[in-house]
Amino acid sequence: MAIRYELIKECKQSGARLGRLHTPHGVINTPIFMPVGTAATVKAMTPEELKEMDAEIILSNTYHLFLRPGHELIEKAGGLHKFMNWDRPILTDSGGFQVFSLGDLRKITEEGVEFRSHIDGSKQFLSPEKATEVQNALGSDIMMAFDECAPYPADYDYVKNSLERTTRWAKRCKDAHKNPDTQALFGIVQGGMYKDLREQSVRELLELDFPGYSVGGLSVGEPKDLMNEVLEYTVPLLPKDKPRYLMGVGSPDALIDGVIRGIDMFDCVLPTRIARNGQCMTSQGKVVIKHAKYREDFTPLDPECDCYTCKNYTKAYLRHLYKANEILSARLLSTHNLHFLISLMKDVRQAIMDDRLLDFREEFFKKYYGDIKPV
Amino acid sequence: MAIRYELIKECKQSGARLGRLHTPHGVINTPIFMPVGTAATVKAMTPEELKEMDAEIILSNTYHLFLRPGHELIEKAGGLHKFMNWDRPILTDSGGFQVFSLGDLRKITEEGVEFRSHIDGSKQFLSPEKATEVQNALGSDIMMAFDECAPYPADYDYVKNSLERTTRWAKRCKDAHKNPDTQALFGIVQGGMYKDLREQSVRELLELDFPGYSVGGLSVGEPKDLMNEVLEYTVPLLPKDKPRYLMGVGSPDALIDGVIRGIDMFDCVLPTRIARNGQCMTSQGKVVIKHAKYREDFTPLDPECDCYTCKNYTKAYLRHLYKANEILSARLLSTHNLHFLISLMKDVRQAIMDDRLLDFREEFFKKYYGDIKPV
Repeated sequence: MAIRYELIKECKQSGARLGRLHTPHGVINTPIFMPVGTAATVKAMTPEELKEMDAEIILSNTYHLFLRPGHELIEKAGGLHKFMNWDRPILTDSGGFQVFSLGDLRKITEEGVEFRSHIDGSKQFLSPEKATEVQNALGSDIMMAFDECAPYPADYDYVKNSLERTTRWAKRCKDAHKNPDTQALFGIVQGGMYKDLREQSVRELLELDFPGYSVGGLSVGEPKDLMNEVLEYTVPLLPKDKPRYLMGVGSPDALIDGVIRGIDMFDCVLPTRIARNGQCMTSQGKVVIKHAKYREDFTPLDPECDCYTCKNYTKAYLRHLYKANEILSARLLSTHNLHFLISLMKDVRQAIMDDRLLDFREEFFKKYYGDIKPV
Repeated sequence: MAIRYELIKECKQSGARLGRLHTPHGVINTPIFMPVGTAATVKAMTPEELKEMDAEIILSNTYHLFLRPGHELIEKAGGLHKFMNWDRPILTDSGGFQVFSLGDLRKITEEGVEFRSHIDGSKQFLSPEKATEVQNALGSDIMMAFDECAPYPADYDYVKNSLERTTRWAKRCKDAHKNPDTQALFGIVQGGMYKDLREQSVRELLELDFPGYSVGGLSVGEPKDLMNEVLEYTVPLLPKDKPRYLMGVGSPDALIDGVIRGIDMFDCVLPTRIARNGQCMTSQGKVVIKHAKYREDFTPLDPECDCYTCKNYTKAYLRHLYKANEILSARLLSTHNLHFLISLMKDVRQAIMDDRLLDFREEFFKKYYGDIKPV
């Protein structure tokens, strides 16, 4: 087995759990937030900077690397770790979500998905076998099965057909997987917002016995309450001795509420994307750096933060860099936002250790959102 | 006096000289290349990275900082050093070159220059007094007098009038300068490509007794031979106990040929600007990273370089980042190019120390340009 999940402790106040995931490139502490390095780089950051903020694992995108520079090239370079100079664990997605998001530019059949590249319009094809081949070439520690992510809203029959295809595709991924000893392949639970379909999906995937499971088809436009509801009835069906991953989630509330429902792993482009738009997550809530009120604000972005940005620069300077469209702006704000989420997850792990995650949630929500939403 | 120039040694093979310039924020070794931080940031770089590559002094632009964020704001922040978190010396230009480059957008009178901001089109005014006030507010170690930079080509009468106004303006800058004990104001020699006008300009400026002199009006489109010719008859007229600065020059050949003619300081946006366009200066000459031949080139950008980029990444990866328009591309290539020029100047200083700058020039030109241009 490529990975091993070690359950350290369950929170007495919630469904949260503290664990360690042992991978070929090192151990990660869960629950964890994974920064996204779409094109073999976490945008604006170096690997050393990610390590300095204690990023333990990053995610990279199969769809993007398949199209550019191509997985064969990365394989020739010695794999994705070596290509991008990152020696800690990497999780790759399957490309499924990206190709389905292409809308009219793609055509789904039982065999796979034909689509047009967003880069040059060329005709491309991804299937369970191809997505697995690509991820084998990349050499990620954790791979994802090629799934069909149903949109929201979608009717019952559509979602049922889609989840059943996802199971058949998961089987094909498993059969095509060449390196089960060094790369762990996760199954993805689908089933939309329908409880019995989620149960069916879990049941079918458990039969295939994956080393980890993702809850897919969430964070696709549904209200957060609905996402939490789906997690509440889906996560308990998953085996306790395997890691559980919620894809594409990165807002502080969704991270905490996901952990409370038993999720171990998260990823999202949110912290780096909003950083490039001048938006920051801070202990005092969201800061939009271009606001005029920060023009002569010579205090740090977040007075409670000890990241490189907050230790060395003022809001006035960060505002100036943003307005002048300087690359350093994207760097400094990305540094802060990633550090913020990674630190948040450290605090979350401590709160689980102390059996007080619900108390922590209340304290955090009050400070960050100014009110306590119901759990 | 804000600064003191210490002449260590003159090269026996050329007009080059080795020196140290003592400034309020530390000592710099000359001849030196100064990275440009136009808008209070050397594009894509942090101060720590600049220090790691031994950048001893940087330049920042009065024109840009005057317009955005404004010198009053930077003064309130505690000065430019504190605002941008750089504690080593800073040289600021006067804004003269930038406003004259605006063409139809500016109007010159004896009083100063009225112009339209390139940012918002607002009407603005810079004069000797204003440019001095701005630089006093910024708190740079070395300030430049507000000069009129004649274009190339320009007729004799135009250049003569322009240099005489530059002298009058230099006097007004000196009179307006509030901090001569902590900020050194340099005079700028004009006179275009006319020997007697250069002599006149030097004569007039020497009477004003500046702590340093720049040779202005070069690198404005004239052939390199002509620039070298002007330096040959202008630099020897300048006092030996003061630093000499050639503005806007950053190509390896022009740096070496400037040093050979007695120049001590240089600045240019070239290394960072071409980096953002995927072009690199290496010991093997220029590399255009997007070229297809680097697609599967898993060797460093420059095998003889020990910069962060060359120690950790391959040409194939750098090419990928550039083609994917990743911010890390600008970072890694800027790092390399700045490191290259700073290292080149270290080698140049060693060659002066060893009385072999002409030999060094020949070796370098052979390797970089593939041929030995006449000195």
